[in-house]
Amino acid sequence: MRRIEFYDTTLRDGSQAEDIQLNIEDKLKIALKLDELGMDYIEGGWPASNTVDQAFFKEIQRYQLRHARVAAFGSTHHPASTPEKDAQLQALIDSRAEAATIFGKTWDLHVAEALRVAPERNLEIIRGSVAHLRQHMPEVLFDAEHFFDGMKANAEYALACLKTAHQAGARVLVLCDTNGGTMPQEIGAMVEAVCQAVPEAAIGIHCHNDCELAVANSLEAVRRGASHVQGTINGYGERCGNANLCSIAPSLRLKHPGEYECLAPDALERLTHLASYVAEVVNVPLFTRQPFVGKSAFAHKGGVHVSAVNRMSRLYEHINPAQVGNRQRILLTELAGRSNIVNLARRYGFHLDKDEPVVKGLLNELKAKSAIGYDFAAAEASVELLLLKKLARRGVRDFFTLVKFHVLDHKDGPGQEPVSTATVLLEVEGVREHTASEGDGPINALDKALRKALKPFYPRLDEMRLIDFKVRVLSGGDLGVEGDKPNAGSACGVRVLIESADASSRWVTVGVSHDVIEASWQALVDSVTYKLYKDELQRHSGEE
Amino acid sequence: MRRIEFYDTTLRDGSQAEDIQLNIEDKLKIALKLDELGMDYIEGGWPASNTVDQAFFKEIQRYQLRHARVAAFGSTHHPASTPEKDAQLQALIDSRAEAATIFGKTWDLHVAEALRVAPERNLEIIRGSVAHLRQHMPEVLFDAEHFFDGMKANAEYALACLKTAHQAGARVLVLCDTNGGTMPQEIGAMVEAVCQAVPEAAIGIHCHNDCELAVANSLEAVRRGASHVQGTINGYGERCGNANLCSIAPSLRLKHPGEYECLAPDALERLTHLASYVAEVVNVPLFTRQPFVGKSAFAHKGGVHVSAVNRMSRLYEHINPAQVGNRQRILLTELAGRSNIVNLARRYGFHLDKDEPVVKGLLNELKAKSAIGYDFAAAEASVELLLLKKLARRGVRDFFTLVKFHVLDHKDGPGQEPVSTATVLLEVEGVREHTASEGDGPINALDKALRKALKPFYPRLDEMRLIDFKVRVLSGGDLGVEGDKPNAGSACGVRVLIESADASSRWVTVGVSHDVIEASWQALVDSVTYKLYKDELQRHSGEE
Repeated sequence: MRRIEFYDTTLRDGSQAEDIQLNIEDKLKIALKLDELGMDYIEGGWPASNTVDQAFFKEIQRYQLRHARVAAFGSTHHPASTPEKDAQLQALIDSRAEAATIFGKTWDLHVAEALRVAPERNLEIIRGSVAHLRQHMPEVLFDAEHFFDGMKANAEYALACLKTAHQAGARVLVLCDTNGGTMPQEIGAMVEAVCQAVPEAAIGIHCHNDCELAVANSLEAVRRGASHVQGTINGYGERCGNANLCSIAPSLRLKHPGEYECLAPDALERLTHLASYVAEVVNVPLFTRQPFVGKSAFAHKGGVHVSAVNRMSRLYEHINPAQVGNRQRILLTELAGRSNIVNLARRYGFHLDKDEPVVKGLLNELKAKSAIGYDFAAAEASVELLLLKKLARRGVRDFFTLVKFHVLDHKDGPGQEPVSTATVLLEVEGVREHTASEGDGPINALDKALRKALKPFYPRLDEMRLIDFKVRVLSGGDLGVEGDKPNAGSACGVRVLIESADASSRWVTVGVSHDVIEASWQALVDSVTYKLYKDELQRHSGEE
Repeated sequence: MRRIEFYDTTLRDGSQAEDIQLNIEDKLKIALKLDELGMDYIEGGWPASNTVDQAFFKEIQRYQLRHARVAAFGSTHHPASTPEKDAQLQALIDSRAEAATIFGKTWDLHVAEALRVAPERNLEIIRGSVAHLRQHMPEVLFDAEHFFDGMKANAEYALACLKTAHQAGARVLVLCDTNGGTMPQEIGAMVEAVCQAVPEAAIGIHCHNDCELAVANSLEAVRRGASHVQGTINGYGERCGNANLCSIAPSLRLKHPGEYECLAPDALERLTHLASYVAEVVNVPLFTRQPFVGKSAFAHKGGVHVSAVNRMSRLYEHINPAQVGNRQRILLTELAGRSNIVNLARRYGFHLDKDEPVVKGLLNELKAKSAIGYDFAAAEASVELLLLKKLARRGVRDFFTLVKFHVLDHKDGPGQEPVSTATVLLEVEGVREHTASEGDGPINALDKALRKALKPFYPRLDEMRLIDFKVRVLSGGDLGVEGDKPNAGSACGVRVLIESADASSRWVTVGVSHDVIEASWQALVDSVTYKLYKDELQRHSGEE
């Protein structure tokens, strides 16, 4: 078994992604999770470039990491400076990180055009920078920037740069496909050439996804001799992103059994959790179709597939989803057949027959609501409520009914904060409850007024909190916001998805309307009803 | 030059994606665009499975496609039936498509477990189905389902299935990695083996992205002998999606110059447009980091990169973005250096020096607003306004100021539609305008009241329409909707992005607040101001 080192650069290269901004707390949270996963290196940032990264290296000292080494990123020294006087290198030393990873030029075009020095001077810069760091830090890694382009342009020079770094003390020579434009067969051949040219060094690979090949290129590099893989969680990174470690790790371990070792023994089972956790911290929703860890990764929609999947999962799943901590999902959509409904009902404990009239009725209702924008694939709690109401099972009922609501939002001047208030009139357990509340925005005000009305009757609503709220406009041109033109088409509107949680679970509900407040109201009502139903069911089963 | 056939299955396999539902108009729109691109085949759907697909094949007859053949999808006949009596095969013939693509079993496990027949009976089914279709349709393609798994389990049997299909008249034998679990080197070796075993047949490849390798696997198959590639636009498809034709086409043409031909000669230059167009029709935002065509694909954020990119694009871009119809973007973010600002200003026609105090001031303002959630990378019109106001250039001014607004939304019973009204009091060109409007939801009402007040002064606002509206909650736990708990942290709130358009351009503006109505108001105000400024600028330049 070959041990493959994993080097995570989510905190540095990953944070170069267009929609990602990390503060110091975010960075610490992610670093600790990566360490739990058995990451070998965590690149914390570029201390010479900003104060957040400097603070990270200081803060991380307080933690006792179990496995990972913390690496600081920087570059070879400035051409006009010396290793001893260079601020970049000093910042690396001052970071007190366990490893320094510095990038240097290996492409002769870059040496001439970006660095603007003679080829020999670049070798001197590499040698001096690595040797100086090696005197003050436990370990140095050398990132050969634009290595593959450099190798194509001038192989002799590119290899000379690597040899220089190695001789000066760099433990790992990391071959970087900085622009992400190299094809797998080229990567493979060049990695093999490097392994032959510098046989004593550990060879690393650092790929970008500009051709949708970063994972393939990394796997090919490993197959041809690399023992160190750099990448990010969920493939975050500048432009099209970096190589996605969440795809590389399961491919290495599950698709090459007995060949490679990487990360902690139980890392894969925790992979989906890790990917979601990091997505939450960086505040970018996980890409639905992301391999292995995405929400759709093991989701089946087509009718034919679903009945086959019911029979034998292996027929339509390349691995067992539990191996990467994910789960199979059967989706209810407009393509849904009756076997999807039967399958879904089974999940909630009901054994229905495909030919029962209630199955056909439910299918029609779901299809009709899907057609006007209800996203039942996302809002499984709303589906469950629909199913339970249709089946008229014990525990599900209308816990309350709306008589009316009234929401007001006003702003009294350009610099003023807006003020939102809501009043709600409900009938709860035979009693009329009229409540009002201010709030942070109209939906918050409505939510608070609703809870105020319900709490005297259902005190356990206190345990429940709203954890996410998403609004989606349903059809591009038909927002109902086009000047004075009437709406084109009845399908226009907004969809609101609300995710709620209590101590034991999380659930998502949906509302659709042309009015964002009405759509939110629908989703709030489902969310509260779901909580009340869950509690009632629990109480009943406790009594039996 | 080898001509590689492109076979698009966006309308069939693509629509199996979790979040995609296509109606007949959507399908027709996409088909016509694919034809313009020079697609060789367009798989329109599965006529035996649903009425939308049947209608598509009927409707598409009315159009004269320039290049593409329309293919209908189905399967080999039912084991209990005969080719002549099988409803599946009859639906293919009735579709009047120019080609039938049928999938059949080649994995012995599937023959036994899913089909539940003897291996010989499966060969008979393949032979009978292909031969029957071939009698009634111009062309038959055979999709060898689970081919690579089948080949690993029992190569002799898998190859026998292919040979049978070929002898019965299938022009293309498409090797399908149905579960998406196969590694590139395995695909390559097996494609080569098939090319040797059935040298007279055209070999196709159909990959799924479950290991993030669909593009690599397709390219490897082509390199080892396949001449027909199946996939979808933007990689849509069930689970993790299908092979992304928008990545395969540019890699084949730009990364292997002189080796492969595919699509129309000018297809690549129109690729980004096509990808966005299809994303709009299917109503799923294009993945930001999507290679070649994504919004971030050529976006540069880091300070070091930006100054190098300014010097010489080739240093940090693997191709010229224009080759795929995309463009370079320089992002303004918390990492932005002063050179980003200078660069941005240059785009709007201002030559600033890095050391001018206004550059530093603007940078600080952008950083401060970014920190509380303004997404300036997305909302470039809002950045431009900020820049122009700071520079106090001619044409930018406050065209109006708010005195107050007041928005009311009420619902008077469970079955009732909600009613939204807004009143706005503005000062416009020295005059107080007090207007009111109902609307489809509170934001539409506010938008209408605002326009009503401004139109007498600025009649050209009639040309402008709102084309997209996005709401994003800024921090998971801190929505201000958590029962009666106070907000945790001041950063919580919602971000609204509004995209507007007139006859000549499109622009995006941003607003941030804890109140969705206030955030929408900010974005609306920027949107209208941008339109007025643009017009004024045009008028001025017309006068000169």
